[in-house]
Amino acid sequence: MKAYVKKDFPVSNVRRFIEPGPIVLVSSAYKDERDIMTMGWHMVMEFEPSLIGCYIWDEHYTQHLVLNSRECVINLPTVDIAQTVVKIGNSTGREIDKFSEFNLTPFKGKKVKAPLIKECYANFECKLVDSSLVKKYNLFIFEVVKAHVATVPKYPKTLHYRGEGLFMISGPTTAKYKRYFKPEMLV
Amino acid sequence: MKAYVKKDFPVSNVRRFIEPGPIVLVSSAYKDERDIMTMGWHMVMEFEPSLIGCYIWDEHYTQHLVLNSRECVINLPTVDIAQTVVKIGNSTGREIDKFSEFNLTPFKGKKVKAPLIKECYANFECKLVDSSLVKKYNLFIFEVVKAHVATVPKYPKTLHYRGEGLFMISGPTTAKYKRYFKPEMLV
Repeated sequence: MKAYVKKDFPVSNVRRFIEPGPIVLVSSAYKDERDIMTMGWHMVMEFEPSLIGCYIWDEHYTQHLVLNSRECVINLPTVDIAQTVVKIGNSTGREIDKFSEFNLTPFKGKKVKAPLIKECYANFECKLVDSSLVKKYNLFIFEVVKAHVATVPKYPKTLHYRGEGLFMISGPTTAKYKRYFKPEMLV
Repeated sequence: MKAYVKKDFPVSNVRRFIEPGPIVLVSSAYKDERDIMTMGWHMVMEFEPSLIGCYIWDEHYTQHLVLNSRECVINLPTVDIAQTVVKIGNSTGREIDKFSEFNLTPFKGKKVKAPLIKECYANFECKLVDSSLVKKYNLFIFEVVKAHVATVPKYPKTLHYRGEGLFMISGPTTAKYKRYFKPEMLV
């Protein structure tokens, strides 16, 4: 599998990759446990601080790790590892170690202990900043504290889930409509 | 502009169109006021009830209408009206009536008073079910109570915002990875 070469990336621009709505992989660790989860329910909530709202179901093993460690990594997979993304979503970290089971390479972050996934296009190190909505909505609010993004290709081919096993694959990125924006709206 | 022909659609399946992360248009009304807003920050939060979390900034005119009427319509635009989508996002309903300014056709819903937009591929009538997170996060939790979706094409070409005036256009939908799902995961 391809291991992307990445550079530091401004955390306030993480929306460039999250706002289009891709499936992401959430990696987490607590003591000697670790897990990876496939996640489709998330949203940008702020630029600065860089906040992302995530739905992590209470039946997911990941919820336990994230609640205890109060951190995670949001990794952006591309279509070349689509099979792996599905298999991660269809298994539980209670029974297997997903890194070894699916031949994924963990690597160390700068700000969190949770492992980053080398085979993903981008890795966003996150701290849990608000868990008050977990009980009612399984909603976790994370702040991205460090971002690593591949430089090639400029725009990754990402997976967008439609339910029932169907994925939309991201199409072209266009600047064609830029001229209809007011300059002050171009953030 | 094209006016899609739509059919009733199960509200629990609205995720088919929201989860891939498209830009949507939020229409709302209160007394004799109405507005349309372009929105990119939203997430599926539940199937049944069909919940969608939405970030509606307090400087948006729409926030005032939604807080008072406690309802809205989430409309799904396609790439053919991309210019209009940008212009809606770059103007305020305090100064203009966006339906007449942008030649959009309002039509009546079944469960809410907010106007639906005929030129959009799908229209989701929503009731505000939780506004407790508005003050802190501008987060509105809506329940979709009625859904209208076009039948042709099967999958719409939607707009996905990257910031800085750049849009990703949705690519093909594929069932290629369906066989890697466990049957019980195919919801």
